[in-house]
Amino acid sequence: MDNLIEMAKKKAGIAAVDEFVKDGMILGIGSGSTVVYAVNRLVERMKLDGLKVVCIPTSFQSTQLIVNGGLTLGDLSRFPNIDVDIDGADEVDENLNLIKGGGGCLLQEKIVASNSEKLIIVADYRKNSKILGEQWKKGVPIEVSPTAYIPLMKKLEKMEGSPVLRLAEMKAGPLITDNGNFILDVDFGEISDPKMLNQKIKMLPGVVETGLFIDMAEKVYFGQKDGSLISRKRSIT
Amino acid sequence: MDNLIEMAKKKAGIAAVDEFVKDGMILGIGSGSTVVYAVNRLVERMKLDGLKVVCIPTSFQSTQLIVNGGLTLGDLSRFPNIDVDIDGADEVDENLNLIKGGGGCLLQEKIVASNSEKLIIVADYRKNSKILGEQWKKGVPIEVSPTAYIPLMKKLEKMEGSPVLRLAEMKAGPLITDNGNFILDVDFGEISDPKMLNQKIKMLPGVVETGLFIDMAEKVYFGQKDGSLISRKRSIT
Repeated sequence: MDNLIEMAKKKAGIAAVDEFVKDGMILGIGSGSTVVYAVNRLVERMKLDGLKVVCIPTSFQSTQLIVNGGLTLGDLSRFPNIDVDIDGADEVDENLNLIKGGGGCLLQEKIVASNSEKLIIVADYRKNSKILGEQWKKGVPIEVSPTAYIPLMKKLEKMEGSPVLRLAEMKAGPLITDNGNFILDVDFGEISDPKMLNQKIKMLPGVVETGLFIDMAEKVYFGQKDGSLISRKRSIT
Repeated sequence: MDNLIEMAKKKAGIAAVDEFVKDGMILGIGSGSTVVYAVNRLVERMKLDGLKVVCIPTSFQSTQLIVNGGLTLGDLSRFPNIDVDIDGADEVDENLNLIKGGGGCLLQEKIVASNSEKLIIVADYRKNSKILGEQWKKGVPIEVSPTAYIPLMKKLEKMEGSPVLRLAEMKAGPLITDNGNFILDVDFGEISDPKMLNQKIKMLPGVVETGLFIDMAEKVYFGQKDGSLISRKRSIT
C-alpha cells in the first residue's frame, strides 16, 4: 500500500521534470515527499545529459535537497523570475486550486510560486478532489504571527472555521515555521468559494499567509494506484 | 521648535488617557514618542488615583514602557478583547485613515488595534493631513518576508510605488523588525484610494502587513504649536 503511494509520487515527479524542465532554466523547488522524486530526476538528468539549471528553494528541506544533489542553488534576490516551479499539494480541486502547507512551508512556497511563470504540481491519487475540503480533512494551514493566534482563532471560528494550533514534535508547544511563526490548521468543511475565503483570511492582521493557492497552478500530475499517470491542465479563464 | 513639538505630543497623550481610560480597562499601548506621554499619564493616575488597568504592548519599546512604569503587563492570549488602544501615527487623513510604521512596529500595532474596541490616536500638528501621502514623504511602511523583498520591490513599482529597503543603524544591512522581517518604505505619492491600495498590497505573497490603517481609528488628538489641542472623530459610515 505505502509502496503504491511512493510509486505514484515518483511517476508524477519524473513526468513533471521531463515535460517542463529545459536546459538553462530557473526552477522553483517545492517541499514535501513528492518533490524529492522530482529533484532526484533533475540530478539524474544533470549527470546523464549535463542538464544545467538554477534551483530556488521553498524551505530548508528543499535547500538541502538541492545542495545534497549537487544542483546549483539560487535565491529570489538574484533570480526573481522563475521559469518553472515544481511543488506538491495536499489537495487539488477541479479548477486546480490547491490546499498546501501540510509540511508547514506554505509561505515560502507561495512566494516562490507567485514569482514563477508556471507552477506545476506533483501529487499522488489521494490529492485529487472536486472541491477543496472534500478529501483533505486536516484543514487549511494558515501561518500566523505568534502573538495573534488566540484572537485569530476566535475570528476564524466566526468565519465558520474550526482552528487547531499545530503542535511541534520533539519540542514542547507549538510548531515554529521556517519564518518563526505558528500554523493554525482550520477546517472549513467543503470550501465553495476558495478565492473569497483566501482573501478574507489574508486580510486579517496577524495572518502572514494562507495555504489556499488560487489560480496559480498550471498543470497537475497525479500518479495512480495502478502505476499509470493522469494530469489536468487549468482551463484558461 | 523641538520643544513645541514635545509639548504638543504631551498634550495629546494626556487628553487621550483622561477622556478614554477608565478603571479596570484592558488597554493597548502603542509605540513611538507620543505614546510615552500617554503612558506617563497612566502611571501618574495609578499613583494618584489608584487606577488599575492591564496593558497589552505593541512592541518591545512599549513592553518596556509598561514594565518600567510599574503598570500591569498583559498579552492577547489572556486578554484578546481590548477596550481602548492608544497609539501614534505618521499621518492621518480626513477620514481618519492612517499611515503607521515609521517606528517599524506596524505589525504588532495593527494586530492590537484590530482587537480593540476603540483605537485612539495621539499625534502632533505635523501629522494632520487631508490625503495620505500629502505630508508624510517617507512612504508607506510595508513589512515583508526577507526572501521576497526583491520581487516585491518590482511588483510595488508596477503599482506606481517607489520602494526603498529600510536600512538598520548600528548593524550592516537591512533593519530587522521585532518579528524578524524587513520593511520596505514605498512612496505612492498622494493616495486617492487607501483602502484598495491596502488590500492589493496585503494580498501579495511575502507581504506580512502594511502600514495603512483603514477604518480603524475612532478619534485623533493633534497637539498644536500654540499649546492648544484639536481632535477629530470618525464619522460613522
